[in-house]
Amino acid sequence: MECNIPGGLREEERVLVSEQSWRPCPEARRRLRGCLEWVKRQLFRVGEDWYFLFVLGVLMATISFVMDVVTSRLYQAHLWLYQEVGDILALKYLSWSMYPTALAAFSTGFSQSITPHSGGSGIPELKTILTGVVLEDYLAIQNFGAKVVGLTCVLACGSTIFIGKVGPFVHLTAMAAVYLGKMRTSVTKEYENKFKQNEMLVAAQAVGVATVFGAPVSGVLFSIEVMSSHFAVRDYWRGFFAATCGAFMFRLLTVFNSEQETIVAVFKSDLRIDFPFDLVETFFFVILGAVCGLLGCAFLFCQRWLLAAVRENRLTAKLLATDKPIYTVLVVLLFSSITFPPGLGQLMASRLTMKEYLTSLFDNRTWGALVSNATDPTGVDPRGLWQEWCHPSATIFGTLAFFLLMKFWMLILATTLPLPAGYFMPIFIYGAAIGRLLGETVALLFPRGLHLEGDPRPVIPGGYALAGAAAFSGSVTHTISTTLLVCEATGYLGHLLPVVLAVLVANAITQKHQPSFYDGTIIVKKLPYLPRIRSRHVASYEVVVEEFMERRVVALAKGSGFEEVLVALDASADAEYPVVETAGSPTLVGTVSRAQLVAFLQSHEHPRAPPGQKLATTGTLGDNCAIEPVMLQLSPWTSLHQAHHLFELLKLQRIFVTRFGELVGAVSRVELRRAIEELTNPK
Amino acid sequence: MECNIPGGLREEERVLVSEQSWRPCPEARRRLRGCLEWVKRQLFRVGEDWYFLFVLGVLMATISFVMDVVTSRLYQAHLWLYQEVGDILALKYLSWSMYPTALAAFSTGFSQSITPHSGGSGIPELKTILTGVVLEDYLAIQNFGAKVVGLTCVLACGSTIFIGKVGPFVHLTAMAAVYLGKMRTSVTKEYENKFKQNEMLVAAQAVGVATVFGAPVSGVLFSIEVMSSHFAVRDYWRGFFAATCGAFMFRLLTVFNSEQETIVAVFKSDLRIDFPFDLVETFFFVILGAVCGLLGCAFLFCQRWLLAAVRENRLTAKLLATDKPIYTVLVVLLFSSITFPPGLGQLMASRLTMKEYLTSLFDNRTWGALVSNATDPTGVDPRGLWQEWCHPSATIFGTLAFFLLMKFWMLILATTLPLPAGYFMPIFIYGAAIGRLLGETVALLFPRGLHLEGDPRPVIPGGYALAGAAAFSGSVTHTISTTLLVCEATGYLGHLLPVVLAVLVANAITQKHQPSFYDGTIIVKKLPYLPRIRSRHVASYEVVVEEFMERRVVALAKGSGFEEVLVALDASADAEYPVVETAGSPTLVGTVSRAQLVAFLQSHEHPRAPPGQKLATTGTLGDNCAIEPVMLQLSPWTSLHQAHHLFELLKLQRIFVTRFGELVGAVSRVELRRAIEELTNPK
Repeated sequence: MECNIPGGLREEERVLVSEQSWRPCPEARRRLRGCLEWVKRQLFRVGEDWYFLFVLGVLMATISFVMDVVTSRLYQAHLWLYQEVGDILALKYLSWSMYPTALAAFSTGFSQSITPHSGGSGIPELKTILTGVVLEDYLAIQNFGAKVVGLTCVLACGSTIFIGKVGPFVHLTAMAAVYLGKMRTSVTKEYENKFKQNEMLVAAQAVGVATVFGAPVSGVLFSIEVMSSHFAVRDYWRGFFAATCGAFMFRLLTVFNSEQETIVAVFKSDLRIDFPFDLVETFFFVILGAVCGLLGCAFLFCQRWLLAAVRENRLTAKLLATDKPIYTVLVVLLFSSITFPPGLGQLMASRLTMKEYLTSLFDNRTWGALVSNATDPTGVDPRGLWQEWCHPSATIFGTLAFFLLMKFWMLILATTLPLPAGYFMPIFIYGAAIGRLLGETVALLFPRGLHLEGDPRPVIPGGYALAGAAAFSGSVTHTISTTLLVCEATGYLGHLLPVVLAVLVANAITQKHQPSFYDGTIIVKKLPYLPRIRSRHVASYEVVVEEFMERRVVALAKGSGFEEVLVALDASADAEYPVVETAGSPTLVGTVSRAQLVAFLQSHEHPRAPPGQKLATTGTLGDNCAIEPVMLQLSPWTSLHQAHHLFELLKLQRIFVTRFGELVGAVSRVELRRAIEELTNPK
Repeated sequence: MECNIPGGLREEERVLVSEQSWRPCPEARRRLRGCLEWVKRQLFRVGEDWYFLFVLGVLMATISFVMDVVTSRLYQAHLWLYQEVGDILALKYLSWSMYPTALAAFSTGFSQSITPHSGGSGIPELKTILTGVVLEDYLAIQNFGAKVVGLTCVLACGSTIFIGKVGPFVHLTAMAAVYLGKMRTSVTKEYENKFKQNEMLVAAQAVGVATVFGAPVSGVLFSIEVMSSHFAVRDYWRGFFAATCGAFMFRLLTVFNSEQETIVAVFKSDLRIDFPFDLVETFFFVILGAVCGLLGCAFLFCQRWLLAAVRENRLTAKLLATDKPIYTVLVVLLFSSITFPPGLGQLMASRLTMKEYLTSLFDNRTWGALVSNATDPTGVDPRGLWQEWCHPSATIFGTLAFFLLMKFWMLILATTLPLPAGYFMPIFIYGAAIGRLLGETVALLFPRGLHLEGDPRPVIPGGYALAGAAAFSGSVTHTISTTLLVCEATGYLGHLLPVVLAVLVANAITQKHQPSFYDGTIIVKKLPYLPRIRSRHVASYEVVVEEFMERRVVALAKGSGFEEVLVALDASADAEYPVVETAGSPTLVGTVSRAQLVAFLQSHEHPRAPPGQKLATTGTLGDNCAIEPVMLQLSPWTSLHQAHHLFELLKLQRIFVTRFGELVGAVSRVELRRAIEELTNPK
């Protein structure tokens, strides 16, 4: 058999020949090898960080895309079912309401059974983590699967529950980043650094936003504004790189999936660019901003109230504690009954998906004109999403107003649901509806536009919808980068300046009167939280640490024995205790952790205990405990602003105050928060 | 006569009547007054900061607009002169070259005679100021007039000198902000706070960029990237508000001036939005990014070399020291001779202004196709700026390549001129030309586009010009927000993703090999400067303060007398000295300034001096000097990253290191810089 091998060579010989056939030019081969070595060195010189960020971006984009595809398939199945059941109203109702109820119930049950952290948006918790607080297991990879599956099911309900995926995606990306970081440290055998982990988390947030909207620049900016109070330009670059990889991949996949011919914006608009708006319209945009700001205040107030009320009410609290799926079923059943298309649903265009809502609201045509022109408004129009908004008896104004009225409380109620869900997208759509309503009104009042001379230049209500979406979502989240988000998401820049104006006005109103959506949730959930110093008054710069520091700090002397340590451990529950030279001259020497002290107690004998055990009796703290040096200390004359700055930037939890080296107090977030509150509401 | 007044009432009576006619409803009046009071209170509650920012934005926008108008008038006068002198070549040459030479010479002489700080762009110096270094008089209002007049004259030379106005405008805005701040403190009688001043400077930079490009968002981002390494989200909001006011005003003025019908982008493009680019073209965009990155490296290297060479060469150094206008005249004469349109100028489209350069390069048509289609390329075309680039014998490729070749060294030479000038705009145009050249080449190679199936989708070279402008300017200034700048300046977002890719590639190359344009100038001008920690390697996180701190700190004991103080003052030239408890136990007590010590010496008698003067002989430092407390101190175990962080954020100059309260060393920017350099180039 061996001789029958083509070429008549045995395996070994062939290997030898093939090796020898390359031998003749050793010089070239050496050069090639050198070249490859060089390329490898160069690649590693770049730093593995960039590969890490690239992988993170591509991975999350793929997940986002796959989730979109699965969601839309599931939704189509629902629509098919709804149409196939025929004209019997009861069947229609059952098929409309049971499908989302079942999905939502499954989502709640599944995700909550795996981990309780998978509910909600995740942004408030991430914000807390980024200020340096450790929330156990919140970023564990176990949550990942639960949240992905749960979110997919919820999104497949279409617009019935009226939720989005930005928040959960930020959470998912953070989990992926932490997991990839752990993998990296286990591969490179490097010590895991907290600084580095934090840098990666910052980049991860940007990826989360960018892969949902396909908007790299505003993804970075939005995540910065929502998450942090300070940031390094270096982190901004990392975020930018990762977000670009993510957004590019996300758009690329739609092209490969033949949905698009080339890379375009996610919610591509056809708004006119040559004459976007008349100068006088700026006035209406400012009014729109004010309306969005006021509605934002009302929304935030009601949302915080309801979130607290649901937790306090005995019935709902009990349901949420033990039978989360039942609570979900009840709420979703209510929602689907209201949105049932032959019922109230026809007044709020409930057959549209979230994406179709946005696309229809950003339409460049004036619906008012379309209605009056069309002889048969029910006729087939290939771009007829707007017709869902057109009800023969209610007119488009009626449907838009009804939509705004109903979705206001429905959205607030949806935020109490214990399932993975994002609330940015619905807020965005809500804002677009406000803008569309105002824009259509302006177009109705001035059918020839506001330009007095020359050709008529009709008002474009789509521009108002853009501005409304940016202003309302900006005011609720206290951000201004939503301006850029609408531009990137629609690929249209013509309305930039009026949108900016509306966003600024809306933000000015809301920031003055309400905490942001995420801060509100942090407050209600009682997560640790450091407020901003809102006062920029010069007097606020004169408040110094001495005025608000905690003076009664439980400290240990270097020479402390058993009894002193015992007293100290009883006196406070701190995680670490300051160690001073002697009680008389309290020069700060370092800190010792609670665990160390407990170990110290266990290895020493109580002086008054009956003798018998072979434990040390005379050792002191200075001899037997590892005293950690203090990195940074404040002086009593450090100003509140400086202290706040340090806490924010270095993510401190507690810092000691020394005067001439002697311990005089400590400042923790509690003191800082109290000082800031006193500044705002002076006694 | 009095009786003839209509109504038959005398003046006084009428006043009485009119007063009484209002009396009847005191309730309403009281309410109205209360209402007005409330509005007033509300207005003041907002904080005067926002009014300040508004005024700053509007003021700078007005100045920018007026400067644009004056510049274009002066330039038109030049063109008129050039056309009126007839066809005699010598006269033509004289009129072409004398006008800019005279203007530039006047600009140099005028601005330098008022203040030497008015030359150059100002961004490097501002960057230094923002790190906490005090540059005397650099932001004095005297510079303002000098820089405005000087800049206007230089800009009126058109593209002969090839400069822009971004940098000087940032400097101008900073000066205006400082001046307005002083006015405010003198009005409100408030103590001027350094923190607050800094916040305003950060906002001022954003205004500077925004009022030139009419681009609020990228103005903020660009100024952040160029100026700072860290920033607060709060400052970002301020910058955003001020920049929006500025950009809005700037665009509004063009509408009022009837240049535009409504607010549109500054360099509005007509690029196609429905099919911006084919996916395969991404590859060419990456190549464009690499080309821009490499050219950026070459540019930065040559620029730094020439800047140093001009300062070292005996002849030029002497000229620049004593006869700046002569140096300017020589260089500008050279430039205008080269750009003389009947000579070499026809090969580099030298009749275009800076703005026309950009508009022509961003043209949405393919020049190659236009040339071959046009039967008579010299025929009148209303949008015919591109024809300036079309030379019968050289073709557009020849002119573009020649333009790139000549402007490379001309631009570098222009950066050595001692007149107010910005270099961002020329770099931007240069990048656009690189992109246009590559884009035209691609369009020539693939006339039917890269889309293999279906309709031909021709390549759009204008998109490459956009990407080139963003990539080259981004790589030279080490920023990525130029991406957004091209989008905002052209009002076109379709090419966002390929532009981002090109910018990222270009930045990756340049940031690895060269300091940025502004950092390079800081290095050559030997301004105090804190480098970034480029290494993100885990080992870099393990470097602690103990390894690089200065151990030999000249300290004074509390009980120091005359001789010890004298020795200390001789031993170092620090501005402040640490004071310790005693020399034996050096617990850090505080600091004392050099001025205080000198005063101490003057008021005390030298122990060995002949008696006679009535001066104190026995007083010690602790008794007679005001010892300032120390705000913040490092411990020897603080990491390099943390220390760097603190220096950047708190704008520190020097900080003491204590171990258990005892002074063990000090860290200043010098030590920090040395440690960072050692990290980059380990011994």
